[in-house]
Amino acid sequence: MKNVIGREIPDEVLQGRRIFKGQFAHTEEIVKVAPKIKHVNPGETKLLTSLEEAIQKTGLKDGMTISFHHHFREGDFILNMVMNIIAKMGIKNLTIAASSLGSVHKPLIEHIKSGIVTNITTSGLRGELAEAISNGLMDNPVVVRSHGGRARAIEAGDIKIDVAFLGAPASDEYGNASGTRGKANCGSLGYAKIDAEYADKVVIITDTLVDFPNAPASIDQTFVDYVVTVDAIGDPAGIASGATRFTKNPKELLIAQNAANLIINSPYFKDGFSFQTGTGGSTLAVTRFLRNAMIENNYKASFALGGITKPMTEMHEEGLIKHIFDVQDFDLGGVASIAKNPMHHEVSSSFYANPHNRGAIVNKLDVVVLSALEIDVDFNVNVITGSDGVARGASGGHCDTAASAKLAIIVTPLVRGRIPTIVDSVNTVITPGESIDAIVTEAGIAINPKRTDLIEILKDSGLPIVTVEELRDKAEKIVGEADPIEYDDKVVALVEYRDGSIIDVIRKVK
Amino acid sequence: MKNVIGREIPDEVLQGRRIFKGQFAHTEEIVKVAPKIKHVNPGETKLLTSLEEAIQKTGLKDGMTISFHHHFREGDFILNMVMNIIAKMGIKNLTIAASSLGSVHKPLIEHIKSGIVTNITTSGLRGELAEAISNGLMDNPVVVRSHGGRARAIEAGDIKIDVAFLGAPASDEYGNASGTRGKANCGSLGYAKIDAEYADKVVIITDTLVDFPNAPASIDQTFVDYVVTVDAIGDPAGIASGATRFTKNPKELLIAQNAANLIINSPYFKDGFSFQTGTGGSTLAVTRFLRNAMIENNYKASFALGGITKPMTEMHEEGLIKHIFDVQDFDLGGVASIAKNPMHHEVSSSFYANPHNRGAIVNKLDVVVLSALEIDVDFNVNVITGSDGVARGASGGHCDTAASAKLAIIVTPLVRGRIPTIVDSVNTVITPGESIDAIVTEAGIAINPKRTDLIEILKDSGLPIVTVEELRDKAEKIVGEADPIEYDDKVVALVEYRDGSIIDVIRKVK
Repeated sequence: MKNVIGREIPDEVLQGRRIFKGQFAHTEEIVKVAPKIKHVNPGETKLLTSLEEAIQKTGLKDGMTISFHHHFREGDFILNMVMNIIAKMGIKNLTIAASSLGSVHKPLIEHIKSGIVTNITTSGLRGELAEAISNGLMDNPVVVRSHGGRARAIEAGDIKIDVAFLGAPASDEYGNASGTRGKANCGSLGYAKIDAEYADKVVIITDTLVDFPNAPASIDQTFVDYVVTVDAIGDPAGIASGATRFTKNPKELLIAQNAANLIINSPYFKDGFSFQTGTGGSTLAVTRFLRNAMIENNYKASFALGGITKPMTEMHEEGLIKHIFDVQDFDLGGVASIAKNPMHHEVSSSFYANPHNRGAIVNKLDVVVLSALEIDVDFNVNVITGSDGVARGASGGHCDTAASAKLAIIVTPLVRGRIPTIVDSVNTVITPGESIDAIVTEAGIAINPKRTDLIEILKDSGLPIVTVEELRDKAEKIVGEADPIEYDDKVVALVEYRDGSIIDVIRKVK
Repeated sequence: MKNVIGREIPDEVLQGRRIFKGQFAHTEEIVKVAPKIKHVNPGETKLLTSLEEAIQKTGLKDGMTISFHHHFREGDFILNMVMNIIAKMGIKNLTIAASSLGSVHKPLIEHIKSGIVTNITTSGLRGELAEAISNGLMDNPVVVRSHGGRARAIEAGDIKIDVAFLGAPASDEYGNASGTRGKANCGSLGYAKIDAEYADKVVIITDTLVDFPNAPASIDQTFVDYVVTVDAIGDPAGIASGATRFTKNPKELLIAQNAANLIINSPYFKDGFSFQTGTGGSTLAVTRFLRNAMIENNYKASFALGGITKPMTEMHEEGLIKHIFDVQDFDLGGVASIAKNPMHHEVSSSFYANPHNRGAIVNKLDVVVLSALEIDVDFNVNVITGSDGVARGASGGHCDTAASAKLAIIVTPLVRGRIPTIVDSVNTVITPGESIDAIVTEAGIAINPKRTDLIEILKDSGLPIVTVEELRDKAEKIVGEADPIEYDDKVVALVEYRDGSIIDVIRKVK
């Protein structure tokens, strides 16, 4: 069956799932779910001596779903540590519901081969694990979800977490857990909050046990069954990079300047506006150009969102951004700021981007600047599969912010190496074209034709406005038309849109 | 049927409810419930022009349950305002699930008479409303719940809130609501948080609309359907008293000194201990005496709990109390502190005292000092009915903290006016004797005989240890034996213990 954006979704993978019908097509009432818990009486202890003991006490057994967060990114020790013990205990047929997976999780390949892990849902797939999955490692397709979509799925019971194994940089013995005050800090624990709220059993794993009460806590004691201490939760170097540097690449700077000019000339740039920018070279540089324009105009942003970096926290500290809502920190600047600045707020992935609560903060976003691996003439965006068809990215908050922001901008070079980024049809759709308002490249800015209002406003702006087809043609001229990727029929991953419908599938590469 | 503490509970009022079997008798797994919600898309507005419109949009109809919080105490305008409009709209047969009710809610009498309100659950009943209910106003008994018990009941679905009408001192147009930053501030909105999380529809009512985003918020936008502005949410003078004064009454000071000496001589008084004291003359004075002993010993409390008053926030600001967990502020000192001190934490009633989550903060309480209207030789405590059998108090956090703290102390004079407080059997049991460790009066300290450990520790302390029977006898000597209250058979209220079982009933007075 083809969905509304023309993507072929084989019936056999749908299994009762809805098919994508448009970014706000879902209108039914949401019946939320709730966990089944064992209450804790005064005097009971939660502190256990080993992960084995914790896994036993949770009652984990074959066929269950366990969850992990990715705040430790490529420095994460928790997932592999827990899976090794589970493997030794002989538990099989588990579903891993990770907020995301990275190259560091390569050992999962063996656990999949041995039948310990039979299902995965994640935002991202990278490295050898991603390669193996793209080559058909798993019988059941991975379900790729956005950050908001994962929160929605948990709240709706589509993901039912039996046991959440949540690494925390610091915790007290009663489970008040935080992303700071430890040896290896990650800042916000935004993705983990929702797991703690909805899992039947919650295990906090920390390498820094602090005095009771560890407050304010990211995850508080009322959600936690057990606390386990380990030698190290992760490699600090992999958890947060030291400093996010601004690009000096002239092409990236040109793209960023074009994007900033687009924002500045849009109706959304005014005192009190809100924005989210990512961590790529161009997107970070947009922040810098915006900063200058804000100072010139004496504008202050009401809030900034997203994966937080030092440039944003600096703008917050100089009073240019009043509030930061932080679901994840990308560098030590972000981590330091959330630990000390009272208006730098830690938020859950549901508050951040869940389409099915009473209004996530993305709903109030004026401008978002996003990157892309590929974007097509229908403005559909791929941020998950490479030019060889292999998974090497993450859904992240891409479709969440794009759908919600008043102005969703993709910044991208026309080509990367010998690969065009503006194409006729992307390999995989993460974000539908209806959510994207503009593509900004070094060769001009293409406005989505449905934004006739924006086209009218910008017509005398002097901005280098072009059509998306012109951008595609220019890219093709530089590198030639790309050979189509050869795929098998087998579906290795379902791409779930934030509302729970299937927007695309990823097939096995040949 | 008689329950385990010998209270007669008529079968016909039980209706499937459990009967009280002991403070930690409930051991089953807890299946939590969740609301049914309508999600909010970008661009939708929540700000409505009138309460009528809000009530219509919520779909409120006959037979539903509506909730209110009591943070505005005797200054509350919200409940009466909403009920007047509901009355005009002709909606009938409603259940009011208030966190507490006061004298200010006297207009409910008319709404009960006219069939608009047919059921009530609350922590407290005072004034003419209480008197009318005690005289048989309602067909269905009121359900009296403790603060922790109400949170439990909401999480378990025993109270299913259809619409929560939550007054907030400040809110933005998207429903980020706070207890400070307004015209009439109450500080913590701890009791309202749970309503917002579990109600199918949530209406924020404010008299101070602030710029988006109002952060940090007590209740955030993801829980809120509608926002309505009104001229005034309440009378600031009734919401928070200006300053809590220390008593100069010599008897109260003697009781307080005895209580402080008991704490200081107990094994729980040490560096890092935790405590809760109330607002009565004696309990506040205990705080002052404790403060002196803490300074002498160079002890700091890890945290203090409860209804927060200025003396506690002063100890926090001078470094004697590291953390304050605040479910409710009792004076402007508390309100000012929660607005500015980062380690003065706002917490929900579930975090505070719910017996059926994975460990409320009361579970970590070392010492609680509580008051009583009456206490009997079995240490059972009455804080709800007066010597005439009429309701004039509140369950509050009494049984929650008493059950959980390592040392639960009742401070009370032997007699009040011509009324003995230490009696053979209290009119109404809110807190079972097994939870109470000591009664402190001006005539001596009675330790619960089951605390043989404490009796042993204190035997050479020089404290004026007596038996509870001696206290009763002394009280009787002063005022004579009280005439028994004459009750009707009709049950006007069920007293639900924090675990959901029925510990006692209140009968119609003759």
